[in-house]
Amino acid sequence: MKIHLHLVKTMKETEYLETIKKVLADSSLIGDDCAFLTPDMTKNNGLYITQDSLVEDVHFKLSTTTPYQLGKKSVSVNLSDLAAVCAEPLYITVSLSLPKRLNEQFVKDFYRGVNEICEKYNVKVAGGDLTGSDKLFISICAIGRKTGEYNISRKNAKPGDIIVVTGCHGDSAGGLSLLEKNDKSCERLICAHLEPLAQIEKSKVLSNLVNQDFAMMDTSDGLADALYKIAHDSGVLMEVDFEAIPVSEQLREKFPDTYKSLVLWGGEDYQLLLCIKPEIYKKLDKDQFFKIGTVQKADILPVVRIKDNDILHTIDLDVFDKKSFNHFGDK
Amino acid sequence: MKIHLHLVKTMKETEYLETIKKVLADSSLIGDDCAFLTPDMTKNNGLYITQDSLVEDVHFKLSTTTPYQLGKKSVSVNLSDLAAVCAEPLYITVSLSLPKRLNEQFVKDFYRGVNEICEKYNVKVAGGDLTGSDKLFISICAIGRKTGEYNISRKNAKPGDIIVVTGCHGDSAGGLSLLEKNDKSCERLICAHLEPLAQIEKSKVLSNLVNQDFAMMDTSDGLADALYKIAHDSGVLMEVDFEAIPVSEQLREKFPDTYKSLVLWGGEDYQLLLCIKPEIYKKLDKDQFFKIGTVQKADILPVVRIKDNDILHTIDLDVFDKKSFNHFGDK
Repeated sequence: MKIHLHLVKTMKETEYLETIKKVLADSSLIGDDCAFLTPDMTKNNGLYITQDSLVEDVHFKLSTTTPYQLGKKSVSVNLSDLAAVCAEPLYITVSLSLPKRLNEQFVKDFYRGVNEICEKYNVKVAGGDLTGSDKLFISICAIGRKTGEYNISRKNAKPGDIIVVTGCHGDSAGGLSLLEKNDKSCERLICAHLEPLAQIEKSKVLSNLVNQDFAMMDTSDGLADALYKIAHDSGVLMEVDFEAIPVSEQLREKFPDTYKSLVLWGGEDYQLLLCIKPEIYKKLDKDQFFKIGTVQKADILPVVRIKDNDILHTIDLDVFDKKSFNHFGDK
Repeated sequence: MKIHLHLVKTMKETEYLETIKKVLADSSLIGDDCAFLTPDMTKNNGLYITQDSLVEDVHFKLSTTTPYQLGKKSVSVNLSDLAAVCAEPLYITVSLSLPKRLNEQFVKDFYRGVNEICEKYNVKVAGGDLTGSDKLFISICAIGRKTGEYNISRKNAKPGDIIVVTGCHGDSAGGLSLLEKNDKSCERLICAHLEPLAQIEKSKVLSNLVNQDFAMMDTSDGLADALYKIAHDSGVLMEVDFEAIPVSEQLREKFPDTYKSLVLWGGEDYQLLLCIKPEIYKKLDKDQFFKIGTVQKADILPVVRIKDNDILHTIDLDVFDKKSFNHFGDK
């Protein structure tokens, strides 16, 4: 853990380090410039690495999130990428660039959130750095261990596969929309945005059940985005029944006119989207894994087709490009 | 490699990814949200991980560095931490937060620099992300493999050890000072600041030669800082002869009144500082490894004593705290 004290003048280097050490349940890997990792590689399946950054006023506003929630979310968005490849999370490094207006209390509360998620999933903080900046900037790197012999990739969807999601979509975008209007009336939606969890448990279920290659990714950039990416990379048609997508009562109630757009294009729900063989789908708990459609042979282009009652929406490259630029726009 | 296109509207996601892939000599590990790593763990010595961030207008100014130089430096500062523990660098992930004013050409040039250092040391880029922000923000995570059976730590300095550095100090701070005055008159100093290299080769020499625990760290935060940290963590007195510290002619010439302060407190030279047994020191090439003093038993407090001709400077906790807050102040 490197703390560049001349850039963070409100406190001494050692004080910051002590603050962080006190908060973490396991601080054995911080203190040096490098952390020494000894992942159990006896099976030698290999490791997964991922890195995600959150920038103040781009990905979050300090007026709508607490430092504690931000710490939790910063770790969770990285663990979500590991969940999407059924990797067992082992280590994270945390890089924090701190404006002078934020003090020791901020660091403490942020790391309380980091620690909560790390303890929950038995993940160790293996250093990182703390520097100064104008805006708060968080970049976390996460390392996990490959658990199975099979491969998980966006390219593995095959005609006949069942399309499955692990939970509700749209809640996070709905929560963000409420926060932007300073509307605190629905805790579920706001919490979905501020404290999303990675689907580590469901990823473990899959890892214990599946024994062959399949397609999976998280829906961090939106359900439609994930559907399109799998369709594109696998060269298949993803046929989805909109009514089968889990949508919370609260989202329908708060956003009666726009909830469908939030469900498809909202993003940041950090659920998993997977395409698996029907015989594996049969073994899954239907209260935790929701069938939303089937993979079909693509006739011309890789596309997503979403049936909503009698209306058929087609997402091809044009729609995808337009929608992705218009993050929360209506359909 | 995750590219959050709705935050970087000047170009499409796939275009950015293609740009990066074209520049990298080995782009086999980028494209997915997670990269799959298969370090050779047959010796199972373990891995080292480190993360360092560079923030625009805090760590660098775009008016004084080219994107290419910035790419090189961003990787080098991380590899320097691996060099300091004699780790063989294997992978990096690169997180880039890009203001809208910076375009595809910036990404291309930055990654040309990243690629140059990666190719030089056989390091693979294993993903990362690209998002939007107001200021340019770079956070790189580097992973290396432990090469020896011994331990390297700041705590390992013992009375009787020889204190060694791998090269000149002060040049980088001198270069920064010139850049701030828009004085382009000394390429060596400016280059030392904008394009420092990690001491990977010298780290390899050490790793092949040493067979027991020793103390080492890089001098990224300044030579006096590193001396004090080893003294503190090992509980020893570091007795240094200022005249033995390698100082470039150019630094003496350009900064006749202040060069001593730059040598001791300047920082960002990314040399190695080590404390080793005299019998190992004897085997080192004296043109590459420079003896600057000896480790002594500490009578009261861990301190650094620097002999400069007949004057003796003592760096204890008070001096250290004051100096570290006064980064480029005179002595």
